[in-house]
Amino acid sequence: MPHIPLDEKLPGITGILNFRTDTALPIRELTQTLLRGPSTLTEGERELIATVVSHGNECKFCTAAHTAAADILLGEKETAEKVKHDPDHAPVSPKMKTLLAIARAVQVSGKNVTIQMVDNAKAAGATDLEIHDTVLIAALFSLYNRLVDGFASVTPAEPAFYERLAVILKDKGYLPSENRYAGLKG
Amino acid sequence: MPHIPLDEKLPGITGILNFRTDTALPIRELTQTLLRGPSTLTEGERELIATVVSHGNECKFCTAAHTAAADILLGEKETAEKVKHDPDHAPVSPKMKTLLAIARAVQVSGKNVTIQMVDNAKAAGATDLEIHDTVLIAALFSLYNRLVDGFASVTPAEPAFYERLAVILKDKGYLPSENRYAGLKG
Repeated sequence: MPHIPLDEKLPGITGILNFRTDTALPIRELTQTLLRGPSTLTEGERELIATVVSHGNECKFCTAAHTAAADILLGEKETAEKVKHDPDHAPVSPKMKTLLAIARAVQVSGKNVTIQMVDNAKAAGATDLEIHDTVLIAALFSLYNRLVDGFASVTPAEPAFYERLAVILKDKGYLPSENRYAGLKG
Repeated sequence: MPHIPLDEKLPGITGILNFRTDTALPIRELTQTLLRGPSTLTEGERELIATVVSHGNECKFCTAAHTAAADILLGEKETAEKVKHDPDHAPVSPKMKTLLAIARAVQVSGKNVTIQMVDNAKAAGATDLEIHDTVLIAALFSLYNRLVDGFASVTPAEPAFYERLAVILKDKGYLPSENRYAGLKG
């Protein structure tokens, strides 16, 4: 049971964001800009960063949700699985490997980001903005993971839930909208 | 030297927020609402939550900045010092002790928040909203700490810098404004 009363129709992060909407709005706007706004990283690549951070924090809800979002955006399930469990052999670009390494470091602590990691990313062609966005996405999901688990919100077990959520995240993004989650529990 | 080119006149978080202003704006708005908006927790109490989380993450810039902000809001320096180094004997209310314990747990992982911690907070009179805001402030500073250290931004050594910053945080809050940091480096 969640630590504070959350709408039981809204599991995971969704009920938490619904609990206090004035603080949720800037969180949603930041996420929309970072994960869906113009970027030289694809939406799928940005969801992979969210996925490895959530996986590192062992946040089941966020890991399942952003794995499903990455899967639907990439059109296959192998890449997200590999970046979580065998990142050295994941079918991503050399640049993405260096950015995912930075994201995994940030998940533990900002101090774990080394000059070598940043040099590797720059040598692989990463821009300053891509490095900035990678660190910020990793920091943002360190926030999300702490909300979901810090409130002990409900984590649905059935994969179909996350597949429905992924369609919403792909088609509607992260901004609030009326009846946003209609049919989610369907 | 920071990992990406940041304005050297803007140390700590300030240059990072200036690097990409469209993502910085919602972060600033969230912080303003949470730390300066209407609340049954005082601004000083909310700065103490930011302080203990930054201290737990060993983020020197954020710890010094929010200690200075708490000091100026509380009108004394003992409380912030004690909540960092001897929280059991800090001169805060019993309710604040339970909320600071939750914040310290969130700093490590959302999973570290126990039912007992939440029950203690409720028994001490904490509302659901106060518990929500405590977890969110702790999660937000887990984000900030990761930005400051993840980019290896400059951390001024002189205490006078943080005293000047604290005046800005007390008088102007967290929203962007023109010439916001004028005179910060003195």
